[in-house]
Amino acid sequence: MEKPPLPRTWMGPIVMGMENLSPRDLRDLIRSGKWRKPTSGACTGYVQANLVMLPQEYAFHFLLFCVRNPKPCPILDVLEPGHVSPRIATGADIRTDLPKYRVYEYGKMKAEVDDVSDLFHEGMVSFLLGCSFSFENALMRAGVPVRNVEEGKNVSMYITNRNCTPSGPFSCPLVVTMRPMSPAHAIRATQITTRFHLTHGAPIHMGDPTEIGIADLDHPDFGDPVTIKEQEIPVFWACGVTAILAATSEKIPLAITHSPGHMFVSDLKDEDLTLL
Amino acid sequence: MEKPPLPRTWMGPIVMGMENLSPRDLRDLIRSGKWRKPTSGACTGYVQANLVMLPQEYAFHFLLFCVRNPKPCPILDVLEPGHVSPRIATGADIRTDLPKYRVYEYGKMKAEVDDVSDLFHEGMVSFLLGCSFSFENALMRAGVPVRNVEEGKNVSMYITNRNCTPSGPFSCPLVVTMRPMSPAHAIRATQITTRFHLTHGAPIHMGDPTEIGIADLDHPDFGDPVTIKEQEIPVFWACGVTAILAATSEKIPLAITHSPGHMFVSDLKDEDLTLL
Repeated sequence: MEKPPLPRTWMGPIVMGMENLSPRDLRDLIRSGKWRKPTSGACTGYVQANLVMLPQEYAFHFLLFCVRNPKPCPILDVLEPGHVSPRIATGADIRTDLPKYRVYEYGKMKAEVDDVSDLFHEGMVSFLLGCSFSFENALMRAGVPVRNVEEGKNVSMYITNRNCTPSGPFSCPLVVTMRPMSPAHAIRATQITTRFHLTHGAPIHMGDPTEIGIADLDHPDFGDPVTIKEQEIPVFWACGVTAILAATSEKIPLAITHSPGHMFVSDLKDEDLTLL
Repeated sequence: MEKPPLPRTWMGPIVMGMENLSPRDLRDLIRSGKWRKPTSGACTGYVQANLVMLPQEYAFHFLLFCVRNPKPCPILDVLEPGHVSPRIATGADIRTDLPKYRVYEYGKMKAEVDDVSDLFHEGMVSFLLGCSFSFENALMRAGVPVRNVEEGKNVSMYITNRNCTPSGPFSCPLVVTMRPMSPAHAIRATQITTRFHLTHGAPIHMGDPTEIGIADLDHPDFGDPVTIKEQEIPVFWACGVTAILAATSEKIPLAITHSPGHMFVSDLKDEDLTLL
């Protein structure tokens, strides 16, 4: 399987001073071509989302794939065919308001562009899916250290031996992120992320990585390895890259996604995504 | 708006002695024509589901309607077009394993039948949605009295002034159930039902019914009125009848649903639906 390029989950220094930008201001900057950088770290406290656009004839089965695999593919918003304004972002245009997009044909990346207006048509359906930025912020606020953030690295991601529940042409293994933690922090992190059921929710596994088919934590499939200290256990969460893998398979003639780290920034606040 | 006939939410005496039947045994009885009664009260502890079947061309927008309105329309299972075996019920056949079905054309009920094999075709998509039996059992186990059960009545249901988020041709007001409770029980019930996010979750309102457009609690739109004692407050939950209203509108050429009270009984246990 071809690996998608690295998502950047922490781009703090790049956007220093931009934490307090409003989502609408950021989207305006992006649309006018003044922001082509990753969005990680911008608009702190607001929900960022993965984007998948597909032709209408694949929309039912992709929506069903997300419904059947809610932990890796939590649905924040789905636009009607041909619609461009998400309900979760006032005045936004999904064709222009992400800093970078990728265009895939039959599983091959064909282009990376900063505007997809010319590719978008009446039959395109856009899906916005939750990402883990929201719960990482919540973990840090609760005093649970997040190693990839501490080390200024991309989070470690692994392809597991667990298959997602397929739907029509969509089928792929579950991809997870891993954050090493003390057992006490792993318990607290489980409590905190359980609340965030629209951004991957509780961990799917902790402890022995071989149980989910991961041979070597030092060699993630995507992202960077991080330090695992003594007495720490690896804690694994379902990862939104799963949805990207499913949408960009060789069975799908056209899929448009965000470029890794270049997310859609919504008007939702992280706390809007909590269950309790 | 034409009111659908009354769902029966409590048919205890009818199925006395059948609480311990396994879901598979019950489905076998139904399929062989030996059970044509409501399913309420049978197979205690197992999840029962609302059924909606629609032609494939309406499947995306109905699935999206459910995703956009998760409290009234919690998705338990969606079958691929033409498939008849739900994932949540081993060996089941969705065409024969409900005791009674209703067939709607352009919003008008055309037939009530006990087998839809002749109407089912390769392009039909079946949706199984959560119902409130699961959380009613949990409330009673926790010592929270459920008035409609105590009084052997159908739960009171009301059409509210809140509109569901529409999706394509699917659009209707939110329907709610009401259970009167002491404030202390209302708090406990909120905690308990929050866990059951796949069977309507936490209440959507409590207290003044006029705030959600209900003029008179003694005259429910569907179901029976129940006694409201002094010091009790009405507690309102989103209701699965909402999904039936949406699917059986005049815009939809064909919809098949369960007959009220004649649900699909799955192999899932109530506790499988809890978040925490």
